[in-house]
Amino acid sequence: MTVTIIGLGLIGGSLALNLRKHGLVQRLIGVEQSSAHARRALELGLVDEIDDLSSAVRRADLIVVAVPVDAMVAVLPPVLDAVAAHQVVIDVGSTKQALLAAVAGHPNRGRFVAVHPMAGTEHSGPEAAFAELFEGKVVVLCDTANSDPDAVQLVEKLFQTVPMRLLYLDGADHDLHTAYVSHISHITSFALALTVLEKEKEEQRIFDLASGGFESTVRLAKSAPATWVPIFRQNRLNVLDVLDEHLHQLQHLRELLAREDYVGLTEQIQQANHIRKILP
Amino acid sequence: MTVTIIGLGLIGGSLALNLRKHGLVQRLIGVEQSSAHARRALELGLVDEIDDLSSAVRRADLIVVAVPVDAMVAVLPPVLDAVAAHQVVIDVGSTKQALLAAVAGHPNRGRFVAVHPMAGTEHSGPEAAFAELFEGKVVVLCDTANSDPDAVQLVEKLFQTVPMRLLYLDGADHDLHTAYVSHISHITSFALALTVLEKEKEEQRIFDLASGGFESTVRLAKSAPATWVPIFRQNRLNVLDVLDEHLHQLQHLRELLAREDYVGLTEQIQQANHIRKILP
Repeated sequence: MTVTIIGLGLIGGSLALNLRKHGLVQRLIGVEQSSAHARRALELGLVDEIDDLSSAVRRADLIVVAVPVDAMVAVLPPVLDAVAAHQVVIDVGSTKQALLAAVAGHPNRGRFVAVHPMAGTEHSGPEAAFAELFEGKVVVLCDTANSDPDAVQLVEKLFQTVPMRLLYLDGADHDLHTAYVSHISHITSFALALTVLEKEKEEQRIFDLASGGFESTVRLAKSAPATWVPIFRQNRLNVLDVLDEHLHQLQHLRELLAREDYVGLTEQIQQANHIRKILP
Repeated sequence: MTVTIIGLGLIGGSLALNLRKHGLVQRLIGVEQSSAHARRALELGLVDEIDDLSSAVRRADLIVVAVPVDAMVAVLPPVLDAVAAHQVVIDVGSTKQALLAAVAGHPNRGRFVAVHPMAGTEHSGPEAAFAELFEGKVVVLCDTANSDPDAVQLVEKLFQTVPMRLLYLDGADHDLHTAYVSHISHITSFALALTVLEKEKEEQRIFDLASGGFESTVRLAKSAPATWVPIFRQNRLNVLDVLDEHLHQLQHLRELLAREDYVGLTEQIQQANHIRKILP
């Protein structure tokens, strides 16, 4: 199988390494707008060659679109225009409704499978890629009823080999649930970093005193705006809804502390501790 | 050296294991209010024996008070009442001003060194203890000018052996800086857990979709209220101050997203990314 990967960052690069590790591909072709990233991807062996978009699409059995979600909406329709009946196209983006709307009714819609491998790190670019990123995680397949059965089967087989756990959702549910358990974490982490950078002017003190707890909550604040602003934009209403709930919860904790209601504060923390049952 | 550890939880238990690992102690005596924890601490080999408070204090060269910070303020003064001129007492608490005020002017104040090893996990109790918890982390020594030089030297030697990096702060500075880089992280994590538990009623979905990013930001929400409510209480004004800044930053991000100011949102995320320079 020849695979073309459009966008050789953390996600596209890691998938390339994983596919190669399992011997699922004979040839890996990369398409990459940044010449520096293209060169680095070749040096790191993420792909065998770099090609231009139209040629790379034509030559592939499977095309993986792994660009930020704003570029995805622009790139996917012309890619679908160009594919033949034996080819399969997937995305790997963190939002789905806008993308699915962009290809709804497309004559080649059946060749496309909407995919979200639920894994990432705070790093980006080809250097950040590693073959194990997705292993053991969940991959969400969206609205598979609108994809051709053979295309869905190929994608299922591919992600089972990674290996990942397959989950099926419709696009609207996907965007709602990921706002809760992924997108909001990034907002709170960005805000936490801004808070500490604003309040703690002595950078050496942050370095000295940052313990594991702080580092793990602030880690996501290192994530790239080029990845996350388009995600927040496409999932804006869901993110605003969860963010309002989060502000409400924070304000409630603040009020309990301000009026020294330590019984109430204890109850809220006990309630928060329930997350332990779900994520042991 | 005989060491008495009052409170055999994560912190006291981990310190016991570390001291034993380095062969710094001949005998470890535990004092523990919970008989279940006392029994478990013996089974796990955290201490050689359990004794009552007054006997355990009398027999020790070094006494480590490792109870929650509200109990600390009550326990430390009578412990100091009982010590002789050759004995040393330390605490290992996350707040310092209230404790330092509680022993200010005590006739044996010189035998006490205020210590905060900056390490922890979201788990608690003797089962959570492990010898490596503190290794390579920072330990803060507070207001050492009010401790006898030989007591400070013993404590320095002990924590250098762990090994930890020593940092000297006054109690007020300690409480201010730890509000920024430790206490606020716990508040945001508790609020995040409450948000997700409130919004996402399908617990299986949380489990399925929680990726590494969410797990790392919500991890601290598993922490025990018995530990953290007393910390928030003793450091209330600093925590409220940082929390207000955090609410302000979150509200700012919310407003930028609500009015679709993606340039402004990008700038804020770039600003948050500066945390990368401080915590690489």
